[in-house]
Amino acid sequence: MINVAIMGFGTVGQGVADVIAMNCELIEKRIGQPVHLKYILDIHDFPNSPFSDKIVHDFETIVHDPEIDVIAETIGGAGIAYEYTKRALTAKKHVVTSNKELVATKGRELLEIAADKNVNYLFEAAVGGGIPVLRPMFQCLAGNRIEEVFGILNGTTNYILSRMVHGGVAFDAALKEAQSMGYAEKDPTADVEGHDACRKICILADLAFGCEILPECVPTTGISHLNLKDVEIGEKAGWHVKLLGRAVRGADGKVYAYVAPHLVEEHYPIASVEDVFNGIMVRGNAVGEVMFYGPGAGKLPTASAVVGDMMDAAQHKNRRRNIGWAAYDQAVIGEPEALSMRCYFRVKDRLDRIEEVFPKSEILYDEDEIAFITSEMPLSELNEREKLLQVCAKLCILN
Amino acid sequence: MINVAIMGFGTVGQGVADVIAMNCELIEKRIGQPVHLKYILDIHDFPNSPFSDKIVHDFETIVHDPEIDVIAETIGGAGIAYEYTKRALTAKKHVVTSNKELVATKGRELLEIAADKNVNYLFEAAVGGGIPVLRPMFQCLAGNRIEEVFGILNGTTNYILSRMVHGGVAFDAALKEAQSMGYAEKDPTADVEGHDACRKICILADLAFGCEILPECVPTTGISHLNLKDVEIGEKAGWHVKLLGRAVRGADGKVYAYVAPHLVEEHYPIASVEDVFNGIMVRGNAVGEVMFYGPGAGKLPTASAVVGDMMDAAQHKNRRRNIGWAAYDQAVIGEPEALSMRCYFRVKDRLDRIEEVFPKSEILYDEDEIAFITSEMPLSELNEREKLLQVCAKLCILN
Repeated sequence: MINVAIMGFGTVGQGVADVIAMNCELIEKRIGQPVHLKYILDIHDFPNSPFSDKIVHDFETIVHDPEIDVIAETIGGAGIAYEYTKRALTAKKHVVTSNKELVATKGRELLEIAADKNVNYLFEAAVGGGIPVLRPMFQCLAGNRIEEVFGILNGTTNYILSRMVHGGVAFDAALKEAQSMGYAEKDPTADVEGHDACRKICILADLAFGCEILPECVPTTGISHLNLKDVEIGEKAGWHVKLLGRAVRGADGKVYAYVAPHLVEEHYPIASVEDVFNGIMVRGNAVGEVMFYGPGAGKLPTASAVVGDMMDAAQHKNRRRNIGWAAYDQAVIGEPEALSMRCYFRVKDRLDRIEEVFPKSEILYDEDEIAFITSEMPLSELNEREKLLQVCAKLCILN
Repeated sequence: MINVAIMGFGTVGQGVADVIAMNCELIEKRIGQPVHLKYILDIHDFPNSPFSDKIVHDFETIVHDPEIDVIAETIGGAGIAYEYTKRALTAKKHVVTSNKELVATKGRELLEIAADKNVNYLFEAAVGGGIPVLRPMFQCLAGNRIEEVFGILNGTTNYILSRMVHGGVAFDAALKEAQSMGYAEKDPTADVEGHDACRKICILADLAFGCEILPECVPTTGISHLNLKDVEIGEKAGWHVKLLGRAVRGADGKVYAYVAPHLVEEHYPIASVEDVFNGIMVRGNAVGEVMFYGPGAGKLPTASAVVGDMMDAAQHKNRRRNIGWAAYDQAVIGEPEALSMRCYFRVKDRLDRIEEVFPKSEILYDEDEIAFITSEMPLSELNEREKLLQVCAKLCILN
C-alpha cells in the first residue's frame, strides 16, 4: 500500500482526490498496490466534502508520518509551497506538483535536494495541465538534440484570442467573457500579461536545453494591448494571432527564450488550437516537429497529470527518475535581439517610406494605415529600423 | 558502457545507426554511459556505409555475445523477426522495435517472455513513428480510464487524402504521386487497404484497454474505393475525409475497434493533420481529449523513437518497465455493429425515399445523386436500412 497526502485543497487538490477515488481500482491494478489517501492539508475544514475526514491543518503531521510515501503539492505560489516542498523532500518524501511558479523559480534547487535524498520531484502538471509533454520530451525524445520548443501555454489568453479572431470581440470584452465563464481570474494580470506562459516556457526550456532560465530573464509581452484591428488584418491574410512562449537554440548555440503574441500561418497545426486548449510543439534534430495538444488547465485534467506522477513516484519508490535538468552542458542564454525573425507592423506612414525602411515587405493592408510583414532579419535590426516609422502595432511572425 | 546491436539495416535500421552516431555525446550524458553500436545484422554487406565494419550475417554472433545488452529489431514482418526477437528475449537481451506487424500479432506473447526473463520489450516506434504516444498513454495518463483512442495512423493514405482534398486529384493519380515521392510503396496494398492502420490501432487498443485485439478481428476498410466526388461534397460542407483507426469503450463496457474512412469536422484538431503526418487522439475519463501529432514514418523520426527506447532499456537494465498490456481486466471485444454513429451516404434515390428510410438526415448534395448525413443510430440498424437504398458511397462520421 502506498500512503499519499495532498497539500492544498483548492481546485487541483480536490481534482486529485476525485481522480484517486474515481479510478482507485485501475490505479491499484496498474501499480500493483492500492493507493491510500491519508491526509489533506489545508487551513479550511471542508465539512461538506466527502474527504473531510482526511483534512489536517498541521504540515508536521504529514512530514513526520513515516507511512507517507508521496505528497502532491497543489498549494501554488512560491511561498509556503516552497518551504513545505523543501522539507518534504528533505524528509525523503516524493513530491509531485502542478505548481509552475515554484518549479520555474526554484525547480533546480528542489531537484538537487531530491537527488541528494534519492527521491523524486515530478511536475508534469506544471506545463500544459493534463497534456503529457515533459515526460515524453525527456524520455521518448531523449535521443534528440532539442532545437526548439514553443507553444500555446495559457488557456485563458487563448480563449480570449479565439473570441477576438472568431467572434470579432475586442480584448476588454473578450476578457470579461472569459471571467464570466470562469476561465479568467478577477485579477487576470498573470494570464493576460504573459507571466503564466513565461513560467511554463522556462520549465520547458530548462528540460529541453538542460539549463536554468529564470522567468525574470525572459522578455515577456502579453495580449492586453492587442488591437482587434491587427487580429482582423492578420485573419484576412491567413494568419491567426496566438500568444506563444518560445525557446530556441540559435545558430550560435545559445538558447533564446521569450513570450509574445505571434501571427501563425492558419494551416500550421498549432494555429488550430482554439479556446482554452494548449498546444506545445517540440523540434528535435532526429524527430523533426511533434505537437502535444489538449486541456492546459482545469480540475480533472490537471489532476490527471498529478496522479500520473504520483503513480510513477510510487513505482520508483526506491529509485530516482532522471529528469535531466542541469544534467547537460550549461547552455548559454542569449538576448533575443540576436534572433532572426520576420515581424508584422501596422504603421502611420506612406508606402514609399515603408519600402525604404523595410524593403521586400509583404503589404497586408493599405487604407488609413498600412500593415505589412517584413523580411527576416535580426530582431536588433528590426528594433532599430522600426524607430524610423510611426508604429501602432507590432507582432512576431512564427516562421 | 552499453553495447547494442541493430538487426535489419534497411531505412529504419540505418536511421538508428545515424541517430546514435549523430547524438552520441548527449546520449552518453543523458544515460550516464556511452552507447557502443557493436553489430549490425543484415544479409547484405554495405561496403560503402560508414558502419560497414559493424555488419555481421549470423544472428548467433549477437545472441551469444554476453556484452550485448540491447537489440533494436528493425527487420519488419512477423517471420524471421519473430524468431530472432523470441530468442533474443529468451537470452535476456532487451529488445526495442519499430515492427508494428510483429507487435500487433505477437506482442502479448513477446511481452510475456520479456516479463519471464526480466527484460524489456519496447515498441514506441511501432505506432506513430517518431511521435511519443504509447509511453505518454500508459505513463502520463496512467491515472485515467481510457475511453477512446483514434487517429490518423498511416502517412501514405493521409498524403493521398490531402492531395484529393486540396488538389482535387482522384485516388489513382494521388497514389501515383505518392509513389513518385517515395511515400507509397510499389505494392501499396498494406497502406491503402488500411492494414497498416489496423495493426497500429490494435497496438493502441491493447495498451489502452489492456486486452489483446488481433488485426484479423478488426473490420478494416481502406481508401482505394474512395470517390473524389464524396471528398468534394464533404469538403464543401465543412468535413475533411480522413482514414481513422478507432477503438472505443462502448456504453456496454465492451471494446470496439475498426478502421474506416471518416468525415471529420474541419475545426476538429485532427482534421488539420495533413500530408504524411499522423495524429493520435486519446480520451481519458480524467484528462478529456489529448492529441499527439508529428511525423508518423521516415528514417530519422522512426529512429528517434527506437533510440529513445534503447536509452530507456539501458537505464532499466535490471528492471522491467511495466507496459500494462494484459495486466488489467480482460476487456470484452464487441462487434462494431453494436456501436452507435452517424454515416454519410451518397445514393441514387429520390429525396422522399431518403426521408422515409433515414428521417432527420442532413442533406449535403442534391443534384444527379443525393448525399446526406444520417442521425445517430446503431451501425447494425444503419446497415439494415441502407439495403433499402441504392448506395454509391458510405463514410463514417466522427462524432
